[in-house]
Amino acid sequence: MTTWIRFRDGDGRIGFGTLDPHSGRVVQHDGALFDRPRPTDISFAADDLTLLAPCEPSKIVALWNNYYALSQKLDKAPPQHPLFLIKPPMSVIGPSEAIRRPRSYHGKIAYEGELGIVIGKTVSGASVEEAEDAIFGYTCVNDVTAIELLQEDPNFAQWCRSKGFDTFTCLGPAIVRGFDWRSATLTTTVDGVERQNYPLDDMIFSPAEQVSLISHDMTLVPGDVIACGTSVGVGSIKDGARVDVSIAGIGTLSNVLAV
Amino acid sequence: MTTWIRFRDGDGRIGFGTLDPHSGRVVQHDGALFDRPRPTDISFAADDLTLLAPCEPSKIVALWNNYYALSQKLDKAPPQHPLFLIKPPMSVIGPSEAIRRPRSYHGKIAYEGELGIVIGKTVSGASVEEAEDAIFGYTCVNDVTAIELLQEDPNFAQWCRSKGFDTFTCLGPAIVRGFDWRSATLTTTVDGVERQNYPLDDMIFSPAEQVSLISHDMTLVPGDVIACGTSVGVGSIKDGARVDVSIAGIGTLSNVLAV
Repeated sequence: MTTWIRFRDGDGRIGFGTLDPHSGRVVQHDGALFDRPRPTDISFAADDLTLLAPCEPSKIVALWNNYYALSQKLDKAPPQHPLFLIKPPMSVIGPSEAIRRPRSYHGKIAYEGELGIVIGKTVSGASVEEAEDAIFGYTCVNDVTAIELLQEDPNFAQWCRSKGFDTFTCLGPAIVRGFDWRSATLTTTVDGVERQNYPLDDMIFSPAEQVSLISHDMTLVPGDVIACGTSVGVGSIKDGARVDVSIAGIGTLSNVLAV
Repeated sequence: MTTWIRFRDGDGRIGFGTLDPHSGRVVQHDGALFDRPRPTDISFAADDLTLLAPCEPSKIVALWNNYYALSQKLDKAPPQHPLFLIKPPMSVIGPSEAIRRPRSYHGKIAYEGELGIVIGKTVSGASVEEAEDAIFGYTCVNDVTAIELLQEDPNFAQWCRSKGFDTFTCLGPAIVRGFDWRSATLTTTVDGVERQNYPLDDMIFSPAEQVSLISHDMTLVPGDVIACGTSVGVGSIKDGARVDVSIAGIGTLSNVLAV
């Protein structure tokens, strides 16, 4: 497994590199993350860096109803094709950045802990095997929702609006290559209290199936993120609450809903 | 009024500039379209250029139910806030490029002729006056839909999927600054037969109201496009059909659904 991070260093410069989870050392790379990055001779202690969102997606494809447990709880049949909305690039924040409540919205805000797929190659109309090869790695996602807007208009479910606000797509702390999602569990805590704890292998469409099927709907490009959908345990958070989304092997994505 | 185009010249180079509609001459500019573009001493005959989509949006915000006539026909109340979905950047094509039928889809494909707002300044939480100032200009949009996918799953309207395919956002032929949308009419023809003909001032949310309200939902950045929604007369097109979306003062956006 290789752990990739994007960061701002003490001098305010943005860079990216590999993190050794044991030593806590980061080796800066140059070039491009998705195109033969080269190690430099510059390294940092991870604690001296500010982590940024690990990639800069041109779009985030966010799935709904992609876990059997949630599908059963909602009493909705598993879909025949991934059901998704698109979140805009400006909705992305990294670890340690704050989720900001929209000024115009005073309702409930929900967290959703999710596995995120990071695309590494331009891919269109891919087979499952080609799709697997186009996956660069995995990250954690908190797919935030202004939940009371979703059904505000009886004629049109406002998925893109309720989930598209600036700061409503938390990504990080890292992208891990070679990560075995099949044996991993995702947990979400709110102010330290566990609210979600589900096995990733309960997914309806596996990551490679998602990339394959969605690549028949639209071209995916390096850095794009597919948020694999959430499972049971979603709830709302109060202003000031901290949400931690953790996947062993990837790390913990921690964001506060700013007061 | 100033008419801005993006183009590929005879040598394959991509450029942008102003078009004089009377002489048909294009003055190439350098710098950036949204940041003090400067005229060069290079000019072309428009006929010698291939027109490209006039901007490269980071996202396309596409409205539903934004004309009173369509709202009455659908028997849906006018919304209280713009109802929208997000289309991905890769869905954009320019004039003279072909709409491509997704290989995996054999159902009906619908056209929707629309006014497009092109954002010229980064804008967030804007008043209507600030929003007006953030509008760079206007273009024509054909918002294409794989219409049989929209309600394919009874639990989730697939707006982003059915409208998000590569080539499903036709933009152009130009961006016109200083265009008076209030006195303009949009017509859509399919193989020369008129199918839509509606006045833009039947809009529920005006362009500046749209930009203001949507800027409270997400930051809009230069080049982003808001597709203002369509009115009555939407229908489907056969493979090989040509769709022309025309707004007097902007021009005609012409695209064929490739066989």
